[in-house]
Amino acid sequence: MSRHFEQADGLCEQPDAATQDFLFNQTMLRIKEPSRSLDFYTRVLGMRLVRKLDFPEMRFSLYFLAYLNDEEASQVPEDDVKRLTYTFGREAMLELTHNWGTEDDADFAYHDGNAQPQGFGHIGITVPDVYAAAERFEELGVTFVKRPDDGNMKGLAFIKDPDGYWIEILQANMLEKQQAEA
Amino acid sequence: MSRHFEQADGLCEQPDAATQDFLFNQTMLRIKEPSRSLDFYTRVLGMRLVRKLDFPEMRFSLYFLAYLNDEEASQVPEDDVKRLTYTFGREAMLELTHNWGTEDDADFAYHDGNAQPQGFGHIGITVPDVYAAAERFEELGVTFVKRPDDGNMKGLAFIKDPDGYWIEILQANMLEKQQAEA
Repeated sequence: MSRHFEQADGLCEQPDAATQDFLFNQTMLRIKEPSRSLDFYTRVLGMRLVRKLDFPEMRFSLYFLAYLNDEEASQVPEDDVKRLTYTFGREAMLELTHNWGTEDDADFAYHDGNAQPQGFGHIGITVPDVYAAAERFEELGVTFVKRPDDGNMKGLAFIKDPDGYWIEILQANMLEKQQAEA
Repeated sequence: MSRHFEQADGLCEQPDAATQDFLFNQTMLRIKEPSRSLDFYTRVLGMRLVRKLDFPEMRFSLYFLAYLNDEEASQVPEDDVKRLTYTFGREAMLELTHNWGTEDDADFAYHDGNAQPQGFGHIGITVPDVYAAAERFEELGVTFVKRPDDGNMKGLAFIKDPDGYWIEILQANMLEKQQAEA
């Protein structure tokens, strides 16, 4: 039996045991203005700020956000150093980097990776009901790249964060649901 | 008591209950050549390919990778549709997008987000021992942006994936360890 769940060229079946405790901890995006990004990720998307690091001599700050349910939240250490270990020891942290002063430059903007030159595409948030989520985003004035029923791919949406980064909004069981209804 | 673990402008203390089951599912990066990226992420970094989706009419493929321990791997559905639901229902999936044909264009390259114009910065992999991991990467011929003891920030490394995207290599308890040794 394969280690993987699909066939494709390049797959390694016997990775070094040294990799077995690796984990995908974080995704880092630069942001222009922390207050608007923190408002968006905590109010609109419901994340929590777990750790903030300031580097005054290098004039930048890092904000680490995650989805934590109440039980997970109760396990987050209060002590700053231990909470940093927690932050770096779990999956699915969003790291927002603020280079001080960018918020005061009206012409400053980050590159979203979807305009040229392309590279990074998006982050994706799974929601229980993509249509309900999209309706709520609409009411909150969130910018859409794609509404759930736009285009060929029905049942998934793309919105923009305050810096213009794309966020896919998806429902885990959408294909199962569409097939059941077909 | 605050919902958050730090103070900062913009934080929402009472997010809409509609967001409580949201989860940070994926980060998408475009790749030029699937076989070299799959080799890198499965052999060098130890991830598993969970789902692959081909869209021949639009000439692109999606590869979803994750870290799964053996118990998690035993719970991944064999059925393709149910495995897609699984893929979209868990945290920390890496989605690699291959637009067909880019691998045949010698001049084609994606933008890493760290050269200008900046935006996305990196993904980050937590490892049990950053020095051991870096030594192994060195032996495997991986390209470094920063070795663990380069620069001011000791004990963390940055490597490049085959498209040039930066990957931070970090050890969760590094600061605790450094303080204990100081």
